Amino acid sequence: YGKNTIKFLRLHKEGKKHFVKEVEVCTHLRLTSAQEYLDGNNSLVIPTDTIKNIVLVLAKKNGIPTLEQFAIDICKHFMTTFCQVAYVKTYVQEVPWQRLHENGVPHIHSFICVPDGIRFCEAEQCRNGPLIVFAGIKDLKLMKTTQSGFEGFYKNEHTTLPERHDRILCGELFCKWSYGECKDFDFDCIWYIKIRECILEAFSGPPDCGEYSLSYQKTVNSIQMLVLSKVSQVQVIEVVLNNTFYNVVDMKNLGLTNDKEVLVPVEAPYGSCACTLARKKFLEA
Amino acid sequence: YGKNTIKFLRLHKEGKKHFVKEVEVCTHLRLTSAQEYLDGNNSLVIPTDTIKNIVLVLAKKNGIPTLEQFAIDICKHFMTTFCQVAYVKTYVQEVPWQRLHENGVPHIHSFICVPDGIRFCEAEQCRNGPLIVFAGIKDLKLMKTTQSGFEGFYKNEHTTLPERHDRILCGELFCKWSYGECKDFDFDCIWYIKIRECILEAFSGPPDCGEYSLSYQKTVNSIQMLVLSKVSQVQVIEVVLNNTFYNVVDMKNLGLTNDKEVLVPVEAPYGSCACTLARKKFLEA
Amino acid sequence: YGKNTIKFLRLHKEGKKHFVKEVEVCTHLRLTSAQEYLDGNNSLVIPTDTIKNIVLVLAKKNGIPTLEQFAIDICKHFMTTFCQVAYVKTYVQEVPWQRLHENGVPHIHSFICVPDGIRFCEAEQCRNGPLIVFAGIKDLKLMKTTQSGFEGFYKNEHTTLPERHDRILCGELFCKWSYGECKDFDFDCIWYIKIRECILEAFSGPPDCGEYSLSYQKTVNSIQMLVLSKVSQVQVIEVVLNNTFYNVVDMKNLGLTNDKEVLVPVEAPYGSCACTLARKKFLEA
Amino acid sequence: YGKNTIKFLRLHKEGKKHFVKEVEVCTHLRLTSAQEYLDGNNSLVIPTDTIKNIVLVLAKKNGIPTLEQFAIDICKHFMTTFCQVAYVKTYVQEVPWQRLHENGVPHIHSFICVPDGIRFCEAEQCRNGPLIVFAGIKDLKLMKTTQSGFEGFYKNEHTTLPERHDRILCGELFCKWSYGECKDFDFDCIWYIKIRECILEAFSGPPDCGEYSLSYQKTVNSIQMLVLSKVSQVQVIEVVLNNTFYNVVDMKNLGLTNDKEVLVPVEAPYGSCACTLARKKFLEA
Repeated sequence: YGKNTIKFLRLHKEGKKHFVKEVEVCTHLRLTSAQEYLDGNNSLVIPTDTIKNIVLVLAKKNGIPTLEQFAIDICKHFMTTFCQVAYVKTYVQEVPWQRLHENGVPHIHSFICVPDGIRFCEAEQCRNGPLIVFAGIKDLKLMKTTQSGFEGFYKNEHTTLPERHDRILCGELFCKWSYGECKDFDFDCIWYIKIRECILEAFSGPPDCGEYSLSYQKTVNSIQMLVLSKVSQVQVIEVVLNNTFYNVVDMKNLGLTNDKEVLVPVEAPYGSCACTLARKKFLEA
Repeated sequence: YGKNTIKFLRLHKEGKKHFVKEVEVCTHLRLTSAQEYLDGNNSLVIPTDTIKNIVLVLAKKNGIPTLEQFAIDICKHFMTTFCQVAYVKTYVQEVPWQRLHENGVPHIHSFICVPDGIRFCEAEQCRNGPLIVFAGIKDLKLMKTTQSGFEGFYKNEHTTLPERHDRILCGELFCKWSYGECKDFDFDCIWYIKIRECILEAFSGPPDCGEYSLSYQKTVNSIQMLVLSKVSQVQVIEVVLNNTFYNVVDMKNLGLTNDKEVLVPVEAPYGSCACTLARKKFLEA
Repeated sequence: YGKNTIKFLRLHKEGKKHFVKEVEVCTHLRLTSAQEYLDGNNSLVIPTDTIKNIVLVLAKKNGIPTLEQFAIDICKHFMTTFCQVAYVKTYVQEVPWQRLHENGVPHIHSFICVPDGIRFCEAEQCRNGPLIVFAGIKDLKLMKTTQSGFEGFYKNEHTTLPERHDRILCGELFCKWSYGECKDFDFDCIWYIKIRECILEAFSGPPDCGEYSLSYQKTVNSIQMLVLSKVSQVQVIEVVLNNTFYNVVDMKNLGLTNDKEVLVPVEAPYGSCACTLARKKFLEA
Repeated sequence: YGKNTIKFLRLHKEGKKHFVKEVEVCTHLRLTSAQEYLDGNNSLVIPTDTIKNIVLVLAKKNGIPTLEQFAIDICKHFMTTFCQVAYVKTYVQEVPWQRLHENGVPHIHSFICVPDGIRFCEAEQCRNGPLIVFAGIKDLKLMKTTQSGFEGFYKNEHTTLPERHDRILCGELFCKWSYGECKDFDFDCIWYIKIRECILEAFSGPPDCGEYSLSYQKTVNSIQMLVLSKVSQVQVIEVVLNNTFYNVVDMKNLGLTNDKEVLVPVEAPYGSCACTLARKKFLEA
């Protein structure tokens, strides 16, 4: 297969107000043929340069109403236009430009980059198969300074970790979910208002007291359960949590008692936990 | 000279509410001696490990009321404690954790990382000299989709750039300023409410119409002028703008007219412009 | 599942001569249970910290005779020791320290880092399944300044790429292959003397004249074919070539004819092509 | 001031043999005027695009005989051509492509990237001042597994570091030196044969036994002293050593004695030591 990445900006105006989307689009193609590899016969090969042109032309003609719709458009174009394409996958990721506000007033043409979680989506299709749409968030860094522990784990002669009931829970989240049959979903609303909010809520618990996390694994599961219960369009959800561990600095040798006030990040071991949960499994649970 | 970097978390509680600062502290020291280099005589060398301990102990004892105050505390400690120190500089940079909000309600112990411009400061002192405090913002990415041009520049046989009066202005800002005599400044308020707002305002102009930028250089100068005029505590301000250029994609060969709707970032040449402006110079201007 | 990464150095001496391996080990585990996710019951969870200890203890006890043997040792340890482990995969990557030479004389204890392709391997096993070993090279950057073209490709209304018969072929190679039944292979010899040499030879052709490449795809295939034909221990080989494109700079406006003397890298579109070839397929071809 | 960076490839042939240099050139300019900042008057501003064209044209016309000569050519061009230029600095860095060898035979047109220390140089000139040339190496990673210690350092109540006489010395070197009056130096020979060899020799000592290092600082100084004594063209040399510390893993809790066999890198505190030594100082010492 082959893939290629192109980054560009799509502007549009409504009256004097400007809108901007900067996206990175990665298109994977697998052809029905193998002759380009075996014989160097390029007659079915679609050059990277052509793929780039197609993506830019579609952006020019259709705009980018939502990331998901744009990915769907690209997929459909390749499947419809090129009979040598056996499989196509389009990944679209957005640079998080937000409109600037001055004293609460939105600016008509100025933007600031606010990378508090990157939105992405994927559309993929095999020839004669359904078009499947995924969406997700990545690079979302969250921290709870209390209400987290890790106890009762498996122990043997290689165990040196003490049990802890008040540690820091900090990590970088990756979540990716698939939508079922893609009717006319309001992809923006589902992403921002529903799923992102669910993730933050499940991670942190009620604002006035939080909710105790028994482990990174349990927090991963809580996020999945809440999204599946609140957002009916989601069929399957995968969550990966890259953990950053913090150790309370031992200050005894320095004559001080450090009551979880000063902590240093532990670079290694660096861990992550991941789980994929599907709706059916969820209903059975 | 020697320098070293340590990263850590400082937590504190007020009732049930948690507060967190994660900082990276880099301490530069220059000693009065040269014997450690010339003879390998280490008797005056302060090990990296000791410097780390001192930074952590100061964080434990004093907390981090503001980045600037913490940098000042570290500088003073080294200058006071070690007579072999000829010069000390402390750079402190903050990981941009923000309190999470759920439906507008602030969470008591959950945070999200929002890197829309990184806050940093520096305190430096030579033995027998004044303690000088700098503060700054870096990695602040801004974009104007109109109201920007570049015309009337110098031309010769190597010029191929066309004049433009409606280009994209996009870049990553670095601003660093020095405070005069450091009395009891409210460093947090000056940084967030005053200077950051000035930078955004000077970059983008009024929210309803913006302000035409004649060049990256002029925009750099506008930022400096506004900060110096609005924030009396600032004595000198340096601004560096790393430019990202965007080209309107030529779609003639593809049978389309691209009216500044689809643009691609130009990776190279990659440029930046920088200027340092002091209050005196400003008054003369 | 969960995974974690640990980086460490393993030293050993033979007489006065020092040997060093610095490795990064990433261990993936999937447990037979789901209760840690669903109920927060941690009783079967093996903490990251314990995994780290096991890896370090095995390195201490057995050393790292080869990367592959070390990965096998770790896999076997987890499968044997923990009955709750359903699947284990160990990835080991080496920091490319090479012994320093002074005027051709090898130094007994000094090393230089020479990252001209990173060696890695993987061992994986499902409970009751075979232990499979992979090895590979990544971040290997190669360039041919001639003997490369791309012609006869598929064309339509979105095609703007001209045909070329003398372009630059430049890219970053990733190759990963699996060994069949792992008897007492000399993993170091196979990697360095055989496979690495095959890759370089297939990429570049004979030293005095090279060999014309019809496309990136054909070059990928040539590498696979040569490895499979020359190295009987290899069963399957995957090759990914991340392409860097270079454009001859058009200097007509500057009054010059640029005869493929000055070229600039094209940052986007950024492409790659990949193919996996197994021995059986090869024999049939 | 303004600066910009351009990356490109310069090919040339001698008979059938190909030669390639891939360089990154960064040009800093400071103009005599300030009007472009203060008034947005661009009439003296040399656009980034023009600077790029000039660099490419010079590469096309003169080739890149050595990095240093190319940097000198660029400097001279700007100083001679533009009377509004008050200061120019050109930094040139080389992508470390090396000719491929097959069984010892050099390939006529294939290259491999071997980043074991990056070569760079700088030429700078103020109007009416001399043209000064610097050269250097960066990202050179070296390690000694023994013959290194750190003892007799300054101690007080914040000291927790134990004295060590057999630690790992590992770091990333940055060296930059200036040449005096630039006559017809053989820049390539000085860089490769002389200075690079001096650095490696001073870092590691004789190949059969090494040489004990009393500290990172002393090793920095040894490098400087050897270069100044062996290479008469060097006037001033700056060396920065970014230290990577390794800790012997304490395996007592795991029932094992770790005799400096397994060590883990310490991510923080991360330190560096730096020193600049000039010939005059050297002679007096």
